[in-house]
Amino acid sequence: MALKEAATVDALQVFYTDLERKHLAPLWTATADLLPREPKTKVLPFLWRWSDLWSLAQRSGELIPIERGGERRVLALINPGLTGRYRTSHTLWAAVQYLQPGERAPAHRHTPAAIRWIIQGEGSYTAVDGEKCVMGRGDLVLTPAWSWHDHGNDTQEPMIWMDGLDLPLVNDLDGTFFEPYPDFSQPLTKPENDSERRYGLGQLKPTWEKQLGPASPLLNYKWNQTSEALGRLAGSGASPFDDVAMEFINPHTGGPVLPTMACWIQLIRPGIRTRAHRQTNSAVYQVFEGSGATIINGKRFDWKKGDMFVVPPWSWHEHANPTDAEAILFSIQDTPVMAALGLYREQAYEENGGHQEVVSTFQG
Amino acid sequence: MALKEAATVDALQVFYTDLERKHLAPLWTATADLLPREPKTKVLPFLWRWSDLWSLAQRSGELIPIERGGERRVLALINPGLTGRYRTSHTLWAAVQYLQPGERAPAHRHTPAAIRWIIQGEGSYTAVDGEKCVMGRGDLVLTPAWSWHDHGNDTQEPMIWMDGLDLPLVNDLDGTFFEPYPDFSQPLTKPENDSERRYGLGQLKPTWEKQLGPASPLLNYKWNQTSEALGRLAGSGASPFDDVAMEFINPHTGGPVLPTMACWIQLIRPGIRTRAHRQTNSAVYQVFEGSGATIINGKRFDWKKGDMFVVPPWSWHEHANPTDAEAILFSIQDTPVMAALGLYREQAYEENGGHQEVVSTFQG
Amino acid sequence: MALKEAATVDALQVFYTDLERKHLAPLWTATADLLPREPKTKVLPFLWRWSDLWSLAQRSGELIPIERGGERRVLALINPGLTGRYRTSHTLWAAVQYLQPGERAPAHRHTPAAIRWIIQGEGSYTAVDGEKCVMGRGDLVLTPAWSWHDHGNDTQEPMIWMDGLDLPLVNDLDGTFFEPYPDFSQPLTKPENDSERRYGLGQLKPTWEKQLGPASPLLNYKWNQTSEALGRLAGSGASPFDDVAMEFINPHTGGPVLPTMACWIQLIRPGIRTRAHRQTNSAVYQVFEGSGATIINGKRFDWKKGDMFVVPPWSWHEHANPTDAEAILFSIQDTPVMAALGLYREQAYEENGGHQEVVSTFQG
Amino acid sequence: MALKEAATVDALQVFYTDLERKHLAPLWTATADLLPREPKTKVLPFLWRWSDLWSLAQRSGELIPIERGGERRVLALINPGLTGRYRTSHTLWAAVQYLQPGERAPAHRHTPAAIRWIIQGEGSYTAVDGEKCVMGRGDLVLTPAWSWHDHGNDTQEPMIWMDGLDLPLVNDLDGTFFEPYPDFSQPLTKPENDSERRYGLGQLKPTWEKQLGPASPLLNYKWNQTSEALGRLAGSGASPFDDVAMEFINPHTGGPVLPTMACWIQLIRPGIRTRAHRQTNSAVYQVFEGSGATIINGKRFDWKKGDMFVVPPWSWHEHANPTDAEAILFSIQDTPVMAALGLYREQAYEENGGHQEVVSTFQG
Repeated sequence: MALKEAATVDALQVFYTDLERKHLAPLWTATADLLPREPKTKVLPFLWRWSDLWSLAQRSGELIPIERGGERRVLALINPGLTGRYRTSHTLWAAVQYLQPGERAPAHRHTPAAIRWIIQGEGSYTAVDGEKCVMGRGDLVLTPAWSWHDHGNDTQEPMIWMDGLDLPLVNDLDGTFFEPYPDFSQPLTKPENDSERRYGLGQLKPTWEKQLGPASPLLNYKWNQTSEALGRLAGSGASPFDDVAMEFINPHTGGPVLPTMACWIQLIRPGIRTRAHRQTNSAVYQVFEGSGATIINGKRFDWKKGDMFVVPPWSWHEHANPTDAEAILFSIQDTPVMAALGLYREQAYEENGGHQEVVSTFQG
Repeated sequence: MALKEAATVDALQVFYTDLERKHLAPLWTATADLLPREPKTKVLPFLWRWSDLWSLAQRSGELIPIERGGERRVLALINPGLTGRYRTSHTLWAAVQYLQPGERAPAHRHTPAAIRWIIQGEGSYTAVDGEKCVMGRGDLVLTPAWSWHDHGNDTQEPMIWMDGLDLPLVNDLDGTFFEPYPDFSQPLTKPENDSERRYGLGQLKPTWEKQLGPASPLLNYKWNQTSEALGRLAGSGASPFDDVAMEFINPHTGGPVLPTMACWIQLIRPGIRTRAHRQTNSAVYQVFEGSGATIINGKRFDWKKGDMFVVPPWSWHEHANPTDAEAILFSIQDTPVMAALGLYREQAYEENGGHQEVVSTFQG
Repeated sequence: MALKEAATVDALQVFYTDLERKHLAPLWTATADLLPREPKTKVLPFLWRWSDLWSLAQRSGELIPIERGGERRVLALINPGLTGRYRTSHTLWAAVQYLQPGERAPAHRHTPAAIRWIIQGEGSYTAVDGEKCVMGRGDLVLTPAWSWHDHGNDTQEPMIWMDGLDLPLVNDLDGTFFEPYPDFSQPLTKPENDSERRYGLGQLKPTWEKQLGPASPLLNYKWNQTSEALGRLAGSGASPFDDVAMEFINPHTGGPVLPTMACWIQLIRPGIRTRAHRQTNSAVYQVFEGSGATIINGKRFDWKKGDMFVVPPWSWHEHANPTDAEAILFSIQDTPVMAALGLYREQAYEENGGHQEVVSTFQG
Repeated sequence: MALKEAATVDALQVFYTDLERKHLAPLWTATADLLPREPKTKVLPFLWRWSDLWSLAQRSGELIPIERGGERRVLALINPGLTGRYRTSHTLWAAVQYLQPGERAPAHRHTPAAIRWIIQGEGSYTAVDGEKCVMGRGDLVLTPAWSWHDHGNDTQEPMIWMDGLDLPLVNDLDGTFFEPYPDFSQPLTKPENDSERRYGLGQLKPTWEKQLGPASPLLNYKWNQTSEALGRLAGSGASPFDDVAMEFINPHTGGPVLPTMACWIQLIRPGIRTRAHRQTNSAVYQVFEGSGATIINGKRFDWKKGDMFVVPPWSWHEHANPTDAEAILFSIQDTPVMAALGLYREQAYEENGGHQEVVSTFQG
């Protein structure tokens, strides 16, 4: 930064001190930091191994009870670029939750919204606003913002699932409210799996139901439906970037299941290597079936069943399935946030190393 | 109408004549007709017997070929209150279409949108914008406004279905365009049943698909899905007016399948008699299974499998299933039109003969 | 229509008779009528002279009092193509309403929505839902569906305005409700011109107001604002089809002032001749200032101040102002109906007699 | 946190170390921090004095030239609770920008969106996407996300305005893109004040303009309109919490001027003391006229003309104008973000110290 001719470095130093005393700061010394040419995220691409997740979850079960105050037995995936901030990406929290036979987690509600993606176990439940949702492997269960929820495992086997929350985002926005339910568990006031009965099959909805809030009224997207839908789509078409990719939808809007998070299921077919692209959203993946690799900003992350990994925002990434078996990836994505605020942008990588605009919500 | 003191009846008569010559008309002599206290529809409640529909359809097959110009072998249900105007209700056209083994109906497109509700036959098809949709009993097939479509029966049995169109509405709005396809049939450029592969199962959509128009991208709602959805909902709840009633939805919006028509499927459980209500929309029903009765403005219409009937706008109606078997009703409704234009209103009938406002889009 | 080989003309005649007895009708004999290549409207282009409107309105004032039952002293513009159906276009009702000094028109409400476009007079009022809206030349006053409204002239001069209603449309849809207010006039429960105070200036709205229905909360669009807006826009740009054309907007949505009618104001600058286009909507114009001509489907309609004319749907039309003074046209348009139902289409006329698609909401 | 019976503190410590090595973290030790009962913001309420802002802005003008790289002569208001993070609230950046006679600030664009609220000076300009917007005291000028913009002062007096940006939010979302224009200034390709000519007056829009992005097409909301609108509203009604408060609106949607920021203008009438409320959004105010006080969480901030202050999220606040002159407050608010993500909540303070829910977007 040059000085004006009549000015001295000393005068500038005094000026900067005076600014600070008055709780002001110059932009011109910070412009490059505050306004980079492209997003400079601190989120690092990273992969967590299933062997670690599973063994550490089991050890947590041996050591730690589930109690009021702690509320849940959850191991959070901490992004190495965001140490100490309890985040998997800048906006998303991903974790594994572990529930042993006979255990219950207490009822509470909070404004951060959550999804559960069931990795192992059949027959435990999440109760949501009076409805018991029975869960099995591959089910996607929602606990929308401010809905009462608790978990229980009445089966003979331990249960483990992926938790996905918008907690980092909601905390950054100073929007977090929390309330424990007066009792340990909430009463079940609705038929079991009631939302599945109303919305769980095909493209129909009860005629008398109105949309009440921004979240989906369907609380449990069952694996048998998801699996069959993926298989059918494979016979129709695929994205060059994401292969056979589907988004779970809110039957009242056709949009994302939560206003802050989209959920995807992807089939990467044997032998497929997708084209690279990058978006302003971030994503956390769970490898549901198979093995393969994702190349993120030129670094290869080999994955196999159970692994979880994060793709930072505005990072080139492509998926590869060099095996002869199908690979299935589940993911949470903060795309709805970027789209709602006019900040979504997507580019495709070109052969020659250049890039091609695919979508931009911020160009007039 | 009183006259002003200084005026004479003769002067008034001259005045009225002068108005007419200048293509003007007084409101004050027509106010009561133009602005009734409540809608005074000419649409009459009416029921068509399946035995008639079926035998006349068969006779049409013996007499009439399917050719360019006539385009389709269709028998339209003419409302007795609207003779000469080719309408089932004031806005809706319902009909039966009959296709014999080996027959084809030529490809064309038009701005009136259509649905097909398959009554009998398995394996004929409707082709829509390059996609062959294979049809069976209980399937709901869409041909949205301005989509190319043709039909064919390559099976060994005659095929009959219900046609539902917004043709009377679109004609009233002077919005009808029609175009024959240059060839008799259109080329099939997409995989068979492609839209079913993309949207047909569960609450998922391909991630790369954008909403292109107001109509649903799912062109064939298969009966096995519909049937299972109805059965599931029966375990959850029901409407006091419509019993176990579901609306087919556009997976991109959560709204009606077409901007002008909603499609419903209703299970009237054994022993149920619903509460009466009335709405500003009209509806045409097809009795898909079972038997029962609908009381419309106090007149009882007993129905059994295959019958079709119309409920006029703003008519009290209730459904009864006095049998011990399930009854299933399919219907088309012009509700989306009334809602979009701020003219939807619904009232419930009270025990004491009064009524109670349920919904009104025109009260501020 | 050919017959099948085995069939006889006699058999066909018996068949047609049987159909009719069963309230059915063949499509194949009516296809060309029901599905024309392009809309075949019965609406004729037509122009009403101000000299006629004004003198006949004055005569009506001498002959006819304003009373309950007749409700209003209104002369409706009857389209010569729709004789006996009380319509200016197929969907729109346009009229002149005449109120003498000291007169009042009784309070009522109805679901057909209305606009008033003030032609002559300063200081009479329309009361809408408890708010007195004081009116002058060039003001646009709304009485949305189901709002209580009455009129009064406490000035020394007769008042005349254009009424625009969606009455024909709402009647066709069997959606007309009417209710007289218990008293002749309604009580004024809000400050005079209250909606103008809240929404009348600039691009601001009260922070605490929510959108309640589909109609604009601003009930009186004052001429001084409209006039200045037109003048400003003239310095920026113009449409090749409509010259300096603006739409009045609902401040809660940015959309049309009513769900069924858009209101436009157009400045046709001296020397301008616009390019021809056609749309699926109809429009009724009032010549507010100046003179010129509109060519509709090749027929020239010369107009001058005060005249009113109708442009039928899907009619080529262009405007010309061969004078050296500005011409100003106000109009009502049923565009929102066609857009909401996926039936809006617009084409531009090409030099070579062909046409070019501008907008279509019904192409996927 | 209790331990299970079989577990030891040592085993727990080893477990925690193992978790950390694998980039995992326990939720149960952090639950209370991550999920507080109510938002615990670090944003402090604070007030900056005009005398400081003005004298330091002038000193910056003596010392610092405006150059590429630094780009702007801007003093940012740093919240004392967020030292080192360049934020006025957690999501909002407010600043003063100072431009001397003859100076120009270089053209660039960025995805953080900005508003300018003109405090002093008449006749300098902001150029936005080819349009020169001439600015005076009380004008609100937008530079939406990714729009090219530069500033210039061709007058004889220094110019100072408030900058309001969503920069902290967009940075937190890793959504910041920046690009300098190839030349120092951009070419002016549109008529001066073009958007004012199109959208600046009354409730009308050009008929041919379509909404292109989420931001308002009106780039300059002129003070004379704003001032008159406020005065008119004062004759109609007021909010118990905000007194005579208006929001600037996007004429294409009726919504906020930017997808991330709402702009408000408030008249606090003489003698008014508002009722306290709190919302999940934050706001930064500029005192445009008059003097008074705002009580935030029980602490009184006396303000006079030119001062700026911040109201943190979820803070009780009320405004008082004990003088006999009008006070006018301008503010930026991140309300649209909280509303779009289902996180908006508002409560009113009750006499008895309790509170009453006013709005919540996150309750089903």
